[in-house]
Amino acid sequence: MIIPVILSGGTGARLWPLSRTMYPKQFIRFFDGQSSLLGATLRRLGHKADFAAPIIVCNSDHRFLVREELTAGGVEAQAILLEPVARNTAAAVAAAALVAARQGNDALLAILPTDHLIGDTTAFCDALVRATDLAQRGKIVLFGTPPSGPHTGYGYIRRGKALEDGCYAIEAFCEKPEPETAARFAADPAFLWNSGIIVAKARTLIEETEHLAPAVLSAARAAVAGATEDLGFLRLDPTAFANSPTVSIDTSILEKTKAAVVLPIGFAWGDVSSWSALWESSPHDAAGNAVEGDAVLIDTCDSIVHSDRSLVATIGVDNLIIVDTPDALLVADKARAQDVSSLVARLKDLNRKEHAQHLRNYRPWGYFETLSLGPRFQVKLLHVNPGGRLSMQMHHHRSEHWVVVSGTAKVTIGDCTKLVQENESVYVMSTQWHRLENPGKVDLELIEVQLGSYLGEDDIVRSDDIYHRAADETR
Amino acid sequence: MIIPVILSGGTGARLWPLSRTMYPKQFIRFFDGQSSLLGATLRRLGHKADFAAPIIVCNSDHRFLVREELTAGGVEAQAILLEPVARNTAAAVAAAALVAARQGNDALLAILPTDHLIGDTTAFCDALVRATDLAQRGKIVLFGTPPSGPHTGYGYIRRGKALEDGCYAIEAFCEKPEPETAARFAADPAFLWNSGIIVAKARTLIEETEHLAPAVLSAARAAVAGATEDLGFLRLDPTAFANSPTVSIDTSILEKTKAAVVLPIGFAWGDVSSWSALWESSPHDAAGNAVEGDAVLIDTCDSIVHSDRSLVATIGVDNLIIVDTPDALLVADKARAQDVSSLVARLKDLNRKEHAQHLRNYRPWGYFETLSLGPRFQVKLLHVNPGGRLSMQMHHHRSEHWVVVSGTAKVTIGDCTKLVQENESVYVMSTQWHRLENPGKVDLELIEVQLGSYLGEDDIVRSDDIYHRAADETR
Repeated sequence: MIIPVILSGGTGARLWPLSRTMYPKQFIRFFDGQSSLLGATLRRLGHKADFAAPIIVCNSDHRFLVREELTAGGVEAQAILLEPVARNTAAAVAAAALVAARQGNDALLAILPTDHLIGDTTAFCDALVRATDLAQRGKIVLFGTPPSGPHTGYGYIRRGKALEDGCYAIEAFCEKPEPETAARFAADPAFLWNSGIIVAKARTLIEETEHLAPAVLSAARAAVAGATEDLGFLRLDPTAFANSPTVSIDTSILEKTKAAVVLPIGFAWGDVSSWSALWESSPHDAAGNAVEGDAVLIDTCDSIVHSDRSLVATIGVDNLIIVDTPDALLVADKARAQDVSSLVARLKDLNRKEHAQHLRNYRPWGYFETLSLGPRFQVKLLHVNPGGRLSMQMHHHRSEHWVVVSGTAKVTIGDCTKLVQENESVYVMSTQWHRLENPGKVDLELIEVQLGSYLGEDDIVRSDDIYHRAADETR
Repeated sequence: MIIPVILSGGTGARLWPLSRTMYPKQFIRFFDGQSSLLGATLRRLGHKADFAAPIIVCNSDHRFLVREELTAGGVEAQAILLEPVARNTAAAVAAAALVAARQGNDALLAILPTDHLIGDTTAFCDALVRATDLAQRGKIVLFGTPPSGPHTGYGYIRRGKALEDGCYAIEAFCEKPEPETAARFAADPAFLWNSGIIVAKARTLIEETEHLAPAVLSAARAAVAGATEDLGFLRLDPTAFANSPTVSIDTSILEKTKAAVVLPIGFAWGDVSSWSALWESSPHDAAGNAVEGDAVLIDTCDSIVHSDRSLVATIGVDNLIIVDTPDALLVADKARAQDVSSLVARLKDLNRKEHAQHLRNYRPWGYFETLSLGPRFQVKLLHVNPGGRLSMQMHHHRSEHWVVVSGTAKVTIGDCTKLVQENESVYVMSTQWHRLENPGKVDLELIEVQLGSYLGEDDIVRSDDIYHRAADETR
């Protein structure tokens, strides 16, 4: 049995404005009607009986999003490790390996990033199984993809001599190349894209980390030893984990270890790391445009147009990235796709909120979305999942009118609890303690009209939160 | 006294998506905090005592918008002529001249399009007065602007020999030129931009129209003769007016008449006919960008960025038009600014609504705006002006919840009328007759949550409409 270790800690800054810190790319349904990247990763594992329940490593902010994906996919994780801060992949893998090693040091792990597009699930699973023999003999097996073109956004591996099971020794790792170099690499069968997928024993990964990045391992060890259980999540010890250097497993271990080998894989692979990468992976129209959403294009070519808001119309443009979301629009030269992360950093510096939050804010009970914000009012759509239960709460400065659009609400105001049906409304005065729940079997949707002189999310006093949220995790 | 004739009939297709058929460019506040183009036109006339009350010619759809601008500007029009259909400028000017001629054939008219930016109001008014002498002697005086650059979006006039009062004979009219020709024109002092501003006697315009475009004049004559009064508007006879050929006064009369002369004007002039024209007229940052609204630009130059929605971020683009509105985004090459009208035609062909309607819909009582539209609900913001009064109405398929955000509402449901204050709500069941009014002195704002199986604007039965609207002018 292979234990999948799913790395779901990234923020996908280069895919802003669709991907944002609080709801990053692994949760986004990029292609209409399809599952998220994390959902697709989970689904692939259901394909074969060779896999044990996965270990997920994610940012603490995303824990309920991860749980929702697991529930939606019908997958039970053996552990969901919560990173209190981001420390890149070396520490995440080390922590997961230490947790897996509780089942024995010989536990076999498949390290799976969540931002991959994989063409053939059967071939993918077969390749994982094929890698186990060498992994069991102490090798770290990396999956390498024969380039389908001169991609400048991927790292490359130059393979050396052939070993058993279709694997090769690794002669060199090459950073993301310039276009001319990429063209040379693409034409040379010795070069493979570094997919980031790894198969290895827990013991191998722990030992190599101890040997090559000892500070990472000792931080991970302390973080796992001090981890606490919370509603089925495993919270890594914050102080201990924060002590780890922020390094990727690639640069700190894989590029240095003698244990690494590469397995060329035969299935289509791509990663969704930037808008240009997404453009390459997407179906194109005759003019080379990848269009998602409502768009009318005139004399437009080789562009990616994504709208989850409303009509996008273009005239006479090419090689553009146009991404329109309800509260932010990006228009960029496609050749500058890597610079989107600098833009996100700039937005953070400007103390804006668009780098972190979407207009739709996910909560463990569902989500809310601001529909309109005026000087003394705010209109929100609230969506409460069946069984969802907001905390008991009170606002000093705003009163709230709720109109139930669909489903049934259980509303507590003061000492009084009542059921509110579709097309009924309820009024909560400021300073009244109140709670909203969905006791039913279908989603509850309601419109909330807030009125008051101060309408900030932080005007909330909360008690009895079934989701154990910290004070700064509002609502 | 000069009678200003303000031509407010255009739709501004090349300024889509900001300008739309139902709320076109003359009503839009292009520059934050400034008045609309029509408002500015009216305000300029208040500058001098030489002007009589204006005659406005506008599309029937815009009559309440025009009245609002007049009220806001404190201007009393002597007539507001409603065009039942658009027939370009020749018929509009002829109808206005016929109405003005009721005061005597020697009435002096200043024909003023509404899409102009004029730098110096005093100089503008002085020039109008200066033109009157020649106009009184039967000339049609056109204002010509010495080019400030090789503009390809304007028509040009080549002046001939000097006449009295600073006027010149006209040697030729030249269509919008290609760039090389424009450069030649701009370097030659004999060439002037055709501003479209005209001073002439009513009699002269009527006689020249009779002579050069007799079908236009006879249609206008019948339309004025058959015009009907409605709430202070003068509705031109629809059948008669529709009989007019659709021609501009430029091509049908000015380019043919022997009466036309040109007066070079000394003040800055521009027209707001396209995004590139607006870009030229706007203040630029150091990189040549004209930015209106919330934007973060990285390595971006010579572009116009307009957002009245939310954040626009750009990376590495130049010479783009980016216009973001709540329900439509335009991204176009600035050199293709003239093609925006083809895009609008395409949207119309596609049976979309974005070419005609904004998300905010203006009504004689104020406006409403859809905030959110779901499968069985719709949330709207309603804004009712003081004294505004919606028709008595009834919906078969939807019930409505109203929450008053500010101001006081007078609500009639069935036989019962009551006042509803801020922070109170009211419920209107489907099939109940109801009416909403603002009896107060301040604006009334309320949130309407509609629920039902059909939410179209056309589910309305109406009676007792104080604005005399036709059945297809909803709400």
